Order: sequence, then structure tokens, then C-alpha cells
Amino acid sequence: MSVKISMKDVAKEAGVSVSTVSRVLNNGKYVTDETKNKVNTAVKKLNYRPNVIARGLRTQKTNSVGLILPDITNEFFGKLAKSIEEKLNEHNINLLLCNSNENPKIEKNYIEALLDKSVDGLIFISSGFDENLDLFPEDLPVVVIDRRPSADRNIYFISSENKKGGYLATKHLIENGCRDILMLKDEKLVSPMNERLLGYQAALRDYNIDFRPEYIIKSKIDLKEIKEKILKIHNKIKFDGIFAGADRLAIGAIRTLSKLGYQIPADIQIVGFDNIPFAKYYNPSITTIAQQIDKIGHKSAELIIELINNKNMGQADSFYFPVYLIKRESTT
Amino acid sequence: MSVKISMKDVAKEAGVSVSTVSRVLNNGKYVTDETKNKVNTAVKKLNYRPNVIARGLRTQKTNSVGLILPDITNEFFGKLAKSIEEKLNEHNINLLLCNSNENPKIEKNYIEALLDKSVDGLIFISSGFDENLDLFPEDLPVVVIDRRPSADRNIYFISSENKKGGYLATKHLIENGCRDILMLKDEKLVSPMNERLLGYQAALRDYNIDFRPEYIIKSKIDLKEIKEKILKIHNKIKFDGIFAGADRLAIGAIRTLSKLGYQIPADIQIVGFDNIPFAKYYNPSITTIAQQIDKIGHKSAELIIELINNKNMGQADSFYFPVYLIKRESTT
Repeated sequence: MSVKISMKDVAKEAGVSVSTVSRVLNNGKYVTDETKNKVNTAVKKLNYRPNVIARGLRTQKTNSVGLILPDITNEFFGKLAKSIEEKLNEHNINLLLCNSNENPKIEKNYIEALLDKSVDGLIFISSGFDENLDLFPEDLPVVVIDRRPSADRNIYFISSENKKGGYLATKHLIENGCRDILMLKDEKLVSPMNERLLGYQAALRDYNIDFRPEYIIKSKIDLKEIKEKILKIHNKIKFDGIFAGADRLAIGAIRTLSKLGYQIPADIQIVGFDNIPFAKYYNPSITTIAQQIDKIGHKSAELIIELINNKNMGQADSFYFPVYLIKRESTT
Repeated sequence: MSVKISMKDVAKEAGVSVSTVSRVLNNGKYVTDETKNKVNTAVKKLNYRPNVIARGLRTQKTNSVGLILPDITNEFFGKLAKSIEEKLNEHNINLLLCNSNENPKIEKNYIEALLDKSVDGLIFISSGFDENLDLFPEDLPVVVIDRRPSADRNIYFISSENKKGGYLATKHLIENGCRDILMLKDEKLVSPMNERLLGYQAALRDYNIDFRPEYIIKSKIDLKEIKEKILKIHNKIKFDGIFAGADRLAIGAIRTLSKLGYQIPADIQIVGFDNIPFAKYYNPSITTIAQQIDKIGHKSAELIIELINNKNMGQADSFYFPVYLIKRESTT
């Protein structure tokens, strides 16, 4: 007759949560002496064998997933984190968020820290330096979003159709009559922005417009820096359209050009990217390429759960979510 | 002759990181057999006694701090998280971020999860329900920011001079000629917004303007909801000024009123709160009450470090950082 006593039984007997029992049995941190006594009394009474179970605990799931992202103040990543979390919470999994601040050294620290915390899996938006992917143990479930690692890695990857987005934005500007189109892009060599650039170039080609490298304006995704870049070039280069690779860049550009006396969209038309909430509420509202942030977030969460439950999924897949243009006031 | 062998020595001998040694000795998760062998060989060679040390490890610091905040997509909290992290990173402490989504049940889960991960301390921005503060073990270093818990709790608290901010905003509008001033505020009963309301009322009183409860418009800090609220009241209530308790509310209001044909600031003047980056780059740029987000973030980080290193700091202090008005185009 050996009924298996579980930690849940101990928790019930002691009148505390399972989590508290686990803390008492594992390290005794953050529990009062009174609670410790309650738990230990319950353990004795039920003849629960913590040592045996404790060993089991170590390979047990922690019901936590880590998310490392490059910039917590970027609306796109904030919204993405929120939708990943919504889906994980439905499955009672906690999300531990870490902000690498676009810094590979900090990113490395966070990967180590999350491994030390025994997260069940990791969702990763890279700071752009592939080397840190080498830190992932082979048996750790990993899903990479947004910024694609080099092709030879067998890793699950989720992103948007970025090239198509760049194409749609540029095509829209050309069909609205623009011929001298700037592209504003991140100075970093991360894949989404480069694919948007490829889309921009492809559209120019299809409409027989020459690509001119000086029409690519590089800037951090930062309001102040894009303002300075626009101030520097606006009377040196002639342009009637702007494809901004991020809505934040579009906002910085519109504000700066408005202050210089340009009419948006009469003088210069602008298309952004991401469809952050402010794009719709800006003056003028911003035509943009919408990414399906919620779908990307939910898919990442579902995929990591699947990988945690069934580690041998074979060859890793990539998923690309469709993008679409939302026409607003910043284009005619 | 007993030289104390440390985990660092083992790491060096095995040619792996300390963190890897710790993982091998503690749970064996996320390490290849090859690495395990290397570490175990080094342990034997150096006669390192992992059991003794392992016990020590359990009460050892983890160099991680948890931050629970209510809305990751709110620019104010994003910027705050970033500055907390900057300061903690200087001290080689990792920050694990959790988004409660303004939901006390999720918040409770995250408090338990972070305790399970043995964070050294917790920085907490409440979803507004004091009950969850009861979950904190007495010996856990805790700093609460922004939303004040009830006065009888002995807990460190950091915030802005919110009442003064509400006063400054309203005074500015009155001195610019406004007499019928709306206040837009969060519908939740959290302390910062209520203090801003007290400041608004105090300014009205000082200038002999009657307080009218129907001039308080409650809305989530959400662009769409504030738009709907403005659409509902704009031709029912006469107003020439708006004090928005958050810049996001100011943006939603300006956009909606502009579309209705009102001139900002000629017809209606608006003051926001927080000084989020977009406030300066909106069309028109937004007069706002600036919170010193970086100072609040850095102080929180410094305080939690102090509490971790010296738990008995006696009676807990409160810190209130000054706010100031930044005049921009949304007021005359």
C-alpha cells in the first residue's frame, strides 16, 4: 500500500501554497520560521519524502519562459512582449522579460541569468550579433523572432514579410506620384530593416527609377537622431517621398519637416512601418505597413510551448506573417 | 594546509564559466555530457567539495532583481524600466521584468515566480491592489515606485511630486486665460492620478474657480478610449483647457479635437503629464509636466542594492522627486 504523497498534499495539510512548500524544501529563503514549521510538520505527518522528490524537482518544469528583447522603450517590442505574455499566461506560464538595450554584452549576461533561473525555454530577439546564439544549450527550446540568424542555424524563426512591406510602401509612394524617395533605416545590420531596403529597391526597379545610395538615410530608431539627420540633408537632397523603416522614424521626420515649413502630404508624402498605436493618432495620421504583432506574439508563445513539451521537432521551421498597407493622411 | 577551493578555480580548471559549473553542480540542466565530464574531472582533481558549497549556494545572492510593472506598452514604464536596468547593470545585477497587465491575479503569479527564482530583491509598481503586498516575505528587500501603498505599511517608496504637477499644469492653463478646464484621468484609484487631481482642485481653488465633477473625464490610458470619451462630451460640455493626467491621454485628445475642427491651442489649450519622448515630437508639440524618470529609476536601483546589502535599514523612507512644467506648442 503506497499512496504517492505529492507536494500538493503537503501544501494542503500545511495550509500554504505549493510554491511555499517548494521554497521551504529547496532553500528556505523567503519563509518565516512559522511557515517552515508548518511545512515540516506536514511533511512528517504525511511521511512525505522531500529528498526523493527534491531530486525530481530539479528536472521538473519551472513554468517560466524567458524573453530577451533589444529595446523595451520601442513600442513595437513592448506590444510584442505583451501579446507573447497574454498567450503564455493562458497556459499558466510566466514570462521573464530582459532588455538587452541593443548591447551584446548585456544580452550575454541575460542569457546566462535566464539559464541559471532554469527557464523552460527562451524567446529571443537578438541585439544583432549572432555569436550569442552559441550560448544556447542544445536541449534548450528556443524561438527567435524578428531578427533572423544566419541561415545555417537550425532554429525556429518567426517574422513578418519585411521585404514585401518595403515593396508595398515604396510602390504606394510611386503610384502617388513620388519619384525622389528617401528611405530612413536603422544603421544596424539587422535583417528586418535590410529586407525592407530590398523591397524598396525592388519597387524602384519595377518602376524604372534609379536607386541612389545617397537616398538611404541611416539613423538609430530615435526621435532626436532622425531629426538631426533630416535637418542635415533636407536642403541638400531633393525628395518628394519618404519610406521610413519604422513609425518612430516617420514621426521624427514629419515633425521636423513640418517645423521647416513643408506640408505633409502635399509637399512630401510619408509611409511608416509597424503600425504602432501612435501612428493612427499622429497629426497627420501616418500611412504605414502594419505588422501583425499579436499574431507574431501568439505564434511565438504557442511554438515555445510545443517545443517545451516535445523537444524533438526535427528540422526547425521559419514563419513569415503577411504585412499590409494602411492608408492614412500622410500620403495622398 | 587547507587552501579553500572555489567554484572559480573549478571553472578555470575545466575551461568553462562559473555559471556553467554552478549549473552542473546544481541541476545538470542545459549542459552537454562533455561539459559535465570536464567539470566533474576538475572537481575531483581539485578535491572540490560541491556538497558543502552547494549548501552555501542556496543562501547566496543570485545577483538578480525582479521588477513588476503594470503596463509594458506605456512609454513611462518602459523608460523607467530602462533606467532602473542601466543602474543595476553597472553593479552587475540582472533585472527580470514582469508585466502584470494591470491584473492583480497575474501580478500575484509573478510575485510568486520571482520568489521561486530567488531574486535578491523586488522593485514593484502595483496594479493598484494593495493586497498583493502581503505576499512579500518580511526579509525580502522591496522598493515600491509610483503607486503608493497605504500609509501603515513600512515600505520604501519612490515617486514624483504628483500633486504639485497637477497644480502647475492647471495654474499654467488658468494664467493663460482658461476658465473651463477638463481633467482627463485614469479610471483606476491609483495614487499618482489622484494626487494630480488634488493638485488640479487646489489650483482651481486658489484662483476662485468652482470645481465641477462633470469636468473630470475618466478613461483608461488608451488612445481609442479617450477618443471615444472626447467624442461623447465635446458638444455637451464647454471647455477651453484640458489637463491630461498622462501624455498618452493628451495625444488622443489633441488628435480627436483636431479632427473635429478645433484649433490647438487657439481654441483649446492642453497640458499633458510625464514628458514621454513623443510629447516633444507631436504636432503640435505638447506642453507637459516632466517627471524625472531617470532619477526615479536610478534611485530605485540604488535603494534596492542598499537594502540587499544591509537589510536592517529601520523605518522605511519615502522619496518624492520634483516635477516641472515644459512649455511647448499646445498652450499659448
